[in-house]
Amino acid sequence: MSGFEPRDPDWEQRVRASIARQAFMTMLGAEIAHLAPGAVDLALPFRRELTQQHGFFHAGTTTTLADSAAGYAALSLYPKGTGVLTTEFKLNLLNPGKGERLIARGRVIKPGRTLTICRGDVYGIEGERETHVATGLFSMICLEGLDD
Amino acid sequence: MSGFEPRDPDWEQRVRASIARQAFMTMLGAEIAHLAPGAVDLALPFRRELTQQHGFFHAGTTTTLADSAAGYAALSLYPKGTGVLTTEFKLNLLNPGKGERLIARGRVIKPGRTLTICRGDVYGIEGERETHVATGLFSMICLEGLDD
Amino acid sequence: MSGFEPRDPDWEQRVRASIARQAFMTMLGAEIAHLAPGAVDLALPFRRELTQQHGFFHAGTTTTLADSAAGYAALSLYPKGTGVLTTEFKLNLLNPGKGERLIARGRVIKPGRTLTICRGDVYGIEGERETHVATGLFSMICLEGLDD
Amino acid sequence: MSGFEPRDPDWEQRVRASIARQAFMTMLGAEIAHLAPGAVDLALPFRRELTQQHGFFHAGTTTTLADSAAGYAALSLYPKGTGVLTTEFKLNLLNPGKGERLIARGRVIKPGRTLTICRGDVYGIEGERETHVATGLFSMICLEGLDD
Repeated sequence: MSGFEPRDPDWEQRVRASIARQAFMTMLGAEIAHLAPGAVDLALPFRRELTQQHGFFHAGTTTTLADSAAGYAALSLYPKGTGVLTTEFKLNLLNPGKGERLIARGRVIKPGRTLTICRGDVYGIEGERETHVATGLFSMICLEGLDD
Repeated sequence: MSGFEPRDPDWEQRVRASIARQAFMTMLGAEIAHLAPGAVDLALPFRRELTQQHGFFHAGTTTTLADSAAGYAALSLYPKGTGVLTTEFKLNLLNPGKGERLIARGRVIKPGRTLTICRGDVYGIEGERETHVATGLFSMICLEGLDD
Repeated sequence: MSGFEPRDPDWEQRVRASIARQAFMTMLGAEIAHLAPGAVDLALPFRRELTQQHGFFHAGTTTTLADSAAGYAALSLYPKGTGVLTTEFKLNLLNPGKGERLIARGRVIKPGRTLTICRGDVYGIEGERETHVATGLFSMICLEGLDD
Repeated sequence: MSGFEPRDPDWEQRVRASIARQAFMTMLGAEIAHLAPGAVDLALPFRRELTQQHGFFHAGTTTTLADSAAGYAALSLYPKGTGVLTTEFKLNLLNPGKGERLIARGRVIKPGRTLTICRGDVYGIEGERETHVATGLFSMICLEGLDD
């Protein structure tokens, strides 16, 4: 889950530029917390607009953050001139989405020419305390001619 | 997938009130399109804020809509004084999220005292044309003392 | 989920030959119950060797049958000179695996050049009665040069 | 993923007895490789009967082993007088099932009164070499009055 060699020397700038183009990530208020080849962390500060009916982070926000962290972990290993799409994923919601902010950690499990399989874990952060909010598996497809 | 008997005579009012309390659904602009026992459709009109880097509906919006439609389909069959939480789900993204609006159709496959299993399908609507954007399976848990 | 056009005129013979080469399917005692382009049903008669600790069909047999029915539904639409591999799947177990036999129905939801997405449903058959044992979603990849 | 406290002092004997009652595990030839509270490893030596059409371990055997390892990892933490059932799972198949034997490692991620969430990973062993064959997530339900 580490020691991956990026195939595009400009991988970091490319990942940052693609995240910046995601209007929905801006709307949510998501921020980059960590970038390395095959490993991307995204953070999401709490706001009332992001909640479900019990006042916790909506599962939709948890999922969006996990999916994006996993997708950009995959993209960080892609060659130039290709783009990333999620083809499928599965998420187990382990604890309510509580905290000052969520952090999603996307990690490549197995890179591939066509499919890259990633793990995505989301934690709720409250001071020093981390709660495991969700864990998931993601299949990312590498598409030629889709410039991310 | 039809002919379910609601256990709470006020199920419809309860589902509407719970959706209204979801700040995140309001932020997205989601609307109720259809309500029946065990079957809930939600619609989401296109806005640029909801897009990913290629200008389509972000997979996070597709997922949020599908999860909410499935969750409220389950809640429509729950007894009074209980609430619904998604414990896990899986989504296959079949086509890009294109269209004037998305519609998510949540349907109960198997109701249960503890777990209710639902299907959720999302379509992109463009005039008369429907594209199948995503299909998923959802496990919903019924929690006592969590009033939805 | 119907009306698919096979790209290999010999699809049926090819599917039958590939199933016959699966030693594990023979070991289980699985049989072909229905073959059409994009739709394959497999049946598995009950035997004590196939059970888990409570005397029902083991979830492993349910899964094997569903995965194989879905995989062959995909293969029935593949061009000559290609093979099928499951890249991932998800299964919800709805009811105990009871009955004289299981029947798994694999159906293509969305065919594709690289990935074909299928549904797989398993039923327990007891006389006239069908119980819905499991429902799942499967991603099948089409591999060139892997002759099935 | 470690340091779990078993609630039944006889957990080990109970897990061994339940595995012994699974006729299908005996038919496959599965063996216990490691037992600890919340962590169960099962091994499966290669035999031609267990293969798919290309001569590798059939995905059904990989899945059965992963599901059983995960299920018994959950059962090892259950109180006396309860039993375990898989309610759903998802598996990503990462590499072909090659090797002298498969080993499945089931680990509890989050124990719960009703649902216990587990990870299951399968490796193909060839001499000193381990290949990551599959990774999955499993939801196990704890049932009262179902004595495992």
